[in-house]
Amino acid sequence: MSAAKVFIDHAKEPLFSEPSIYKSDPERYERDWVPKIKAYNDALKSAMPKEYLAPSTLYPEDLDAAPFNATTVPEKVLDEKSLQITNMTATELAKKIAAKELTASETILAFIKRATIAHQLTHCAMEILFEDGIKRAKELDEYQEKYGKTIGALHGVPVSLKEHYDYAGRVTHGGFVGCLDRVSEKFSVTNQILYDLGAVFYIRTTEPQCLMHLDSINNITGRGRNAYKTSLSPGGSSSGEGALIGMRGSPLGVGSDIGGSIRSPAAFNGIWGLKPSTKRLSMARCFAPFEDTYPETIGCALGPMSNSVDDLELFMKNYVAAEPWKYDQDSLPIPWREVPTPKPSDLTIGIVYDDGVVKPHPPVLRALKKVEEDLKAAGVNVITWDSHKVYEAAEVANAAYTCDGNYSAFNRLSASGEPLAPLTEHYLTFGKGDKGLKTLELQFYTHTREVLRQEYLDLFNERGVDFIIAPTYVGTAPKTSEIKYWGYTSLWNILDATCVTFPTGVFGDKSIDLKDESYKPRNEYEAYEYGIYDPEASDGMPVGLTLAGRRYCEEEALKASKVIADILKV
Amino acid sequence: MSAAKVFIDHAKEPLFSEPSIYKSDPERYERDWVPKIKAYNDALKSAMPKEYLAPSTLYPEDLDAAPFNATTVPEKVLDEKSLQITNMTATELAKKIAAKELTASETILAFIKRATIAHQLTHCAMEILFEDGIKRAKELDEYQEKYGKTIGALHGVPVSLKEHYDYAGRVTHGGFVGCLDRVSEKFSVTNQILYDLGAVFYIRTTEPQCLMHLDSINNITGRGRNAYKTSLSPGGSSSGEGALIGMRGSPLGVGSDIGGSIRSPAAFNGIWGLKPSTKRLSMARCFAPFEDTYPETIGCALGPMSNSVDDLELFMKNYVAAEPWKYDQDSLPIPWREVPTPKPSDLTIGIVYDDGVVKPHPPVLRALKKVEEDLKAAGVNVITWDSHKVYEAAEVANAAYTCDGNYSAFNRLSASGEPLAPLTEHYLTFGKGDKGLKTLELQFYTHTREVLRQEYLDLFNERGVDFIIAPTYVGTAPKTSEIKYWGYTSLWNILDATCVTFPTGVFGDKSIDLKDESYKPRNEYEAYEYGIYDPEASDGMPVGLTLAGRRYCEEEALKASKVIADILKV
Repeated sequence: MSAAKVFIDHAKEPLFSEPSIYKSDPERYERDWVPKIKAYNDALKSAMPKEYLAPSTLYPEDLDAAPFNATTVPEKVLDEKSLQITNMTATELAKKIAAKELTASETILAFIKRATIAHQLTHCAMEILFEDGIKRAKELDEYQEKYGKTIGALHGVPVSLKEHYDYAGRVTHGGFVGCLDRVSEKFSVTNQILYDLGAVFYIRTTEPQCLMHLDSINNITGRGRNAYKTSLSPGGSSSGEGALIGMRGSPLGVGSDIGGSIRSPAAFNGIWGLKPSTKRLSMARCFAPFEDTYPETIGCALGPMSNSVDDLELFMKNYVAAEPWKYDQDSLPIPWREVPTPKPSDLTIGIVYDDGVVKPHPPVLRALKKVEEDLKAAGVNVITWDSHKVYEAAEVANAAYTCDGNYSAFNRLSASGEPLAPLTEHYLTFGKGDKGLKTLELQFYTHTREVLRQEYLDLFNERGVDFIIAPTYVGTAPKTSEIKYWGYTSLWNILDATCVTFPTGVFGDKSIDLKDESYKPRNEYEAYEYGIYDPEASDGMPVGLTLAGRRYCEEEALKASKVIADILKV
Repeated sequence: MSAAKVFIDHAKEPLFSEPSIYKSDPERYERDWVPKIKAYNDALKSAMPKEYLAPSTLYPEDLDAAPFNATTVPEKVLDEKSLQITNMTATELAKKIAAKELTASETILAFIKRATIAHQLTHCAMEILFEDGIKRAKELDEYQEKYGKTIGALHGVPVSLKEHYDYAGRVTHGGFVGCLDRVSEKFSVTNQILYDLGAVFYIRTTEPQCLMHLDSINNITGRGRNAYKTSLSPGGSSSGEGALIGMRGSPLGVGSDIGGSIRSPAAFNGIWGLKPSTKRLSMARCFAPFEDTYPETIGCALGPMSNSVDDLELFMKNYVAAEPWKYDQDSLPIPWREVPTPKPSDLTIGIVYDDGVVKPHPPVLRALKKVEEDLKAAGVNVITWDSHKVYEAAEVANAAYTCDGNYSAFNRLSASGEPLAPLTEHYLTFGKGDKGLKTLELQFYTHTREVLRQEYLDLFNERGVDFIIAPTYVGTAPKTSEIKYWGYTSLWNILDATCVTFPTGVFGDKSIDLKDESYKPRNEYEAYEYGIYDPEASDGMPVGLTLAGRRYCEEEALKASKVIADILKV
């Protein structure tokens, strides 16, 4: 007896005989889609309240070219109360609103003012929903007035959202021009949970084409800018969140990360970001490049970004308490555990000075050194972590990203015939590129992933290490379309490790972070990435490092991060 | 820049240009491996204590052919104390040993006696470790004597192990002749956890070739027999566990299930079995057919089997408390939750009378009806569950099992050139068989799996159902090499649902379970599976049904099962 095939016919063969090599279609794109892009941007522009814009005297005309520190502008423009409110953390805001020392309405108004300036200077918004935010805040204030209590732990807290989470009644396109007509019916599970906790939505932020650059360019809103130097990249793919929160135009945002997409914008804009292990927070109804397939060798994790470690914990513990697994079958029912904050001397931390593939740039090395010294001085046990098979992990990651031979990206891009951004061209060559992987190859790589995960767990146990502190990227924020090596971040995606990216208080300094011109690169990656180090560009840019742990140790990682924040005073 | 490939070369192309079609190699097998099989069986035979064997007058000569109920024998042979001990549940044993009302040594001795008879009659053992068990029990008694406490929650409890979990210092072959030289260095994580909890290991039990029949035949120890009727199948792939625990030769055993391998032997031998969701219990260092690949579309879950629902809980809560994720990166850190036992009226249960593919045989329908009536009478809310896309789920499962084009099975089988058992030949044709799936096909199927999981969660929520009670298989225990349709069990593997298989107290009765010869089968599966119903064979055979729930609801499923056990008096 052979099994009769009735319901499923996946025999669209030959699936790989001719790889789908993407070619843009300028004519169709120009005719059918450019008008939609224009309408989208017009709506974005018209939603910007002119009365809150920073005067043009306060910033250079060509922000894309100027090494302009946009974070200095808000304090020159905002009224004192708005400054005071927007300089608070989400935790402080939630407390003050609950205590009726602040209303949700005055809170959102302050953030609307600052977000206006943030978008004006960094181009961080995909969609502005200020009116919705004002309306929602008013409803929350009325609720609190009427019932004498808050609606949830985030009552009145403005929360910014990366664009690709479904937003009821709005277009959700994930950075693909061809999805500009895709209206979401419902909130993503994450948006719904945050909404039910009392969050006020008011802005959706930018992401790059394909959601797969550690940078920001897409064909809808163009490129984004770094908050600390507008000529540089804000990182990505949670590009807008990085710049917006770096500008304090949002106290708390939601990013997502399959290769560094929360961590690189956090590091490049001097803020905090948590990449949990996968499936702890829900990705249900988050737009993904894939649609009718489900790749699972490397997974995307959603996580919070903010200006303080407390806010990451506020987000996580209340989100997890909402039990996303009740609505999303793919979320894991791992309850939030209350764990004690360790004493510095309880912690053993391994520092990574070099992943064995690309040596970090001088500002990053200096930050690592300073963090090591400060932690040691505070009593933390610090060892140097000998890197383990990072190149191998990066290869598994790269092969996994494009294992479908770019079938999904091809379909999404082909919908509009849009042109490829330079870093999309780069991304599409990852692994075996358009050729994709055969099933057995994929399973060999997946096996390697499992081996690596076990080896790392064994190493953590054998070396007695609680956490690793490592570079988030080789350097500080790069120039646009520059960053190509993902190994410092994608390693932890392959391992599915918990990561907290944190500001170190260290900034690039061209007078001391000199380039070693005599350094002999060990491989092609290093030749490229070490080669692009530019002390001038790096000058004044924040260095963010990443604390990485075992899988599903978000609770412990945040407590350890608090210890580190106290020691580093960040 | 293209990524230089240094560490990994998986380009063993063309991987699928010529499928690996397995052909046995009788000459090599006979020459190199049959002597090893003989030595293995000689060791098994010589480990059987002759003094505990049942006299040959008590059972028919040809057990394979006779419809002999082996469960009646122990009470005719065993001394009263051994009977008393072996009739206890693991929970009772653990309590009595902890209270010093029983020693570990007298406990293991009683089970050794009964296991001897069980193996004699059902051929359930792969490896007998009675001497190890006696030594270990003695050590535990000494420990308790010396320190005045037990070593752990399973102190002195005999625990039987399906063979394919690595056992330190012993051969672990997983039912493949070609692995008869494969000596395990360490315990599997599961074995280690149970050992540390105080379990006494004394027997490793049988499994079929490839670990992929709902039956028992392998080329090492041959076929196993059902405890209630030795002419019938014990089910599989945890074949030996089913028969051994059905004979009460073990109070608590460990099975594993990727398509029904805990549930079918539990149902066929009238015992309890829990298939948790995957990754809750550790599969680390469990022998798998695959070695250098890692397929993840459908996962195997390890779980307990026993004679009482209390024992399943005893196992689970103490196992999970040992935190397997500390040693195994692939185990999820989901702590055991203490949940209350519901009142019958708190429960809403959906009953499946037909999965839409194969109508169950009369004894199963009668058991479903009786359970429905008993539950209703006790106050449980019972509805009829309309089946949802079971055929589609079965197709996803079948395609996933052989997605590698039988590459792994081919390699394992080729090591010895062993002949294929009939149900291995059947299994190797599942899905696309030797052709395997292309990467995109695999990802389409995986996507379908995700959709099904979400649809089922939504249906549970919409219909307000806590659990479903469904057939474990179309009928009672089938004849050897007969069972081909896995849909009633593999559905829950595709959904990764928690399942508890329980005895109903209903047994096949040829006088009332008449065959409907006029029934018109709806498809090929049903024509075959409904066609094999044999009232004579089914007569006197236990009907085990399965309670299925959401993912990771082991705690609630066991509490609900206790309510059901109380109502059904099983």
